[in-house]
Amino acid sequence: MKILGICGSLRKASLNMAALRACAELTPQGMTLEVASIADLPIFNQDVLDAGMPEPVKRLRGEIVAADGLLIASPEYNFSIPAPLKNAIDWASRPPNQAFQDKPIAIFSVTPGPVGGARVQYDLRRVLGQLWGHVLPRPEVFIGNAASKFDANGRIVDETTRKFLTDLLAGFKDWVVRMQPKK
Amino acid sequence: MKILGICGSLRKASLNMAALRACAELTPQGMTLEVASIADLPIFNQDVLDAGMPEPVKRLRGEIVAADGLLIASPEYNFSIPAPLKNAIDWASRPPNQAFQDKPIAIFSVTPGPVGGARVQYDLRRVLGQLWGHVLPRPEVFIGNAASKFDANGRIVDETTRKFLTDLLAGFKDWVVRMQPKK
Amino acid sequence: MKILGICGSLRKASLNMAALRACAELTPQGMTLEVASIADLPIFNQDVLDAGMPEPVKRLRGEIVAADGLLIASPEYNFSIPAPLKNAIDWASRPPNQAFQDKPIAIFSVTPGPVGGARVQYDLRRVLGQLWGHVLPRPEVFIGNAASKFDANGRIVDETTRKFLTDLLAGFKDWVVRMQPKK
Amino acid sequence: MKILGICGSLRKASLNMAALRACAELTPQGMTLEVASIADLPIFNQDVLDAGMPEPVKRLRGEIVAADGLLIASPEYNFSIPAPLKNAIDWASRPPNQAFQDKPIAIFSVTPGPVGGARVQYDLRRVLGQLWGHVLPRPEVFIGNAASKFDANGRIVDETTRKFLTDLLAGFKDWVVRMQPKK
Repeated sequence: MKILGICGSLRKASLNMAALRACAELTPQGMTLEVASIADLPIFNQDVLDAGMPEPVKRLRGEIVAADGLLIASPEYNFSIPAPLKNAIDWASRPPNQAFQDKPIAIFSVTPGPVGGARVQYDLRRVLGQLWGHVLPRPEVFIGNAASKFDANGRIVDETTRKFLTDLLAGFKDWVVRMQPKK
Repeated sequence: MKILGICGSLRKASLNMAALRACAELTPQGMTLEVASIADLPIFNQDVLDAGMPEPVKRLRGEIVAADGLLIASPEYNFSIPAPLKNAIDWASRPPNQAFQDKPIAIFSVTPGPVGGARVQYDLRRVLGQLWGHVLPRPEVFIGNAASKFDANGRIVDETTRKFLTDLLAGFKDWVVRMQPKK
Repeated sequence: MKILGICGSLRKASLNMAALRACAELTPQGMTLEVASIADLPIFNQDVLDAGMPEPVKRLRGEIVAADGLLIASPEYNFSIPAPLKNAIDWASRPPNQAFQDKPIAIFSVTPGPVGGARVQYDLRRVLGQLWGHVLPRPEVFIGNAASKFDANGRIVDETTRKFLTDLLAGFKDWVVRMQPKK
Repeated sequence: MKILGICGSLRKASLNMAALRACAELTPQGMTLEVASIADLPIFNQDVLDAGMPEPVKRLRGEIVAADGLLIASPEYNFSIPAPLKNAIDWASRPPNQAFQDKPIAIFSVTPGPVGGARVQYDLRRVLGQLWGHVLPRPEVFIGNAASKFDANGRIVDETTRKFLTDLLAGFKDWVVRMQPKK
């Protein structure tokens, strides 16, 4: 089972990216995780798409289609989905295929403040669910007060955080199996 | 009263942009409308901002701050705010000042389908309201089935649409006056 | 396959209720539809529940648990879920079991105005999805301008509306099959 | 300045109600707070309204109209607005007048878990904002982990919580003044 990670922030020191990388070592047996790059996508413009799909878009779409599931980690920008992540979604959802169709998806958020990203998660759930992605309902993982939970190298130093992510990945594995279309 | 228009789509033939331009001729006495460009903003990245604010961001922020109000026209991309528009919001909301603070804002949406953009409008209302922008609650203007309401040159050919926009601008003028801080 | 219908309005002449009843004659082979009553539930109060579950709540919960899926038809009250429907959800979601767990659910809305209920549907999708109900993503069915689509006896007089509901029920049948837990 | 408090929970031991009562002693000079009762409203049904407005509805509507502002404290039920509170809104918003029109409103939430009610607050902001209520954007007050912040008699034992509420009320006073229609 191959999972593709997508991070909503482009910052080099992003704690969401750190958490995604940490997830690669917390996956249950039989699941592997690689992280996509969305930093080199142009801003979505249908005119650009009509003139020919940009290479970074082709690459991202191919990675999504090839994955058995997506793991999205994202901060919250202005109470909703960060522009870089919405941009990746807007590109990947366009014809000739819609890359999120029937794709199992798990979401978590890492935020500096205490609330932990409820708003970005619900917007993502709505957007991806309407694109017929299958978003894991629970466990919901909100990692607030993030500065205390990672060290200077971006490694998790909080056992509760590690357990939340481990449980999320285990639940996601079951979900990916369940959401496979019946033959 | 100087209003700045912002369009959520970057397409050259965008009907939202056409409607914004048409609004420039429908403003009540004493209101002028100019339309900003958001096409040349880079994708938001805090690392980029920390290294120095890009020129197109400086320009857009200056235009927003100088305006007495904002008129946002936007399609709906994937059931929410288009990436180019969220990107403009993410840039303009950052310190040293937060450009939407205390700014009167009116919103409308032009969409090809019949529903007319309820979802993008509510997401915008939430995002901009939490940034302490003052979003005009009503009239709500949803221009659905847009292809029948504009001609090939992007001019409004539907009287109801023209009236909706005229009423929106008149209501917005009152709202801008009302929302001025009391001295 | 036994489907339970739930209507968000308590009005006797509710067009959502009329549409639900019409659905009973549009079901695909192998699917039957009965409509629940939520009119006699008290307003949710945890103190009341702690003192003993009221009979109408017991009955509704039993009907939900026994059904293979739920078909919810609802108007939009004040841009969100009508109080009577949220009340039914609040009661049915409480322990000792949470009645929506793993329940396939389809939603449609009938509204007098043109927008057709986008806001109530998205709130329902979020609420029921987080309760681990499996809400059919598409087709989305918004029946706006409802007065023109039903006769005085609440029968559908618009062929497009009949087709939308027939397609919804057919898609829902496949969804119910798909969402059954793998053995 | 007379403020009317409304509590989203009907539980006798509701911590939201406790917090509302505590607010009565934290108001800035010139502001008084009384708390409404919404427990005796019937469930909203337009047929009932058409037959004559029930007395508890008349009373609540009169209290809202007479108030200079509303202070709403609410838990989150199933990721959204509790049924009792949505019920009060559905009743108070109906003609012959719409009681929330031009009413300044402040919102806070008290919840047992750590997230603190982001979802109920955003749904309330959207619903009440679209009814042309003027909802104070900030400070946002989320009182999570509530059991540790009140004693057995429902009194606030956490200084940070007391300060949050005091600041909310002070900000609300300015907002009520500002939102008064210009003469």
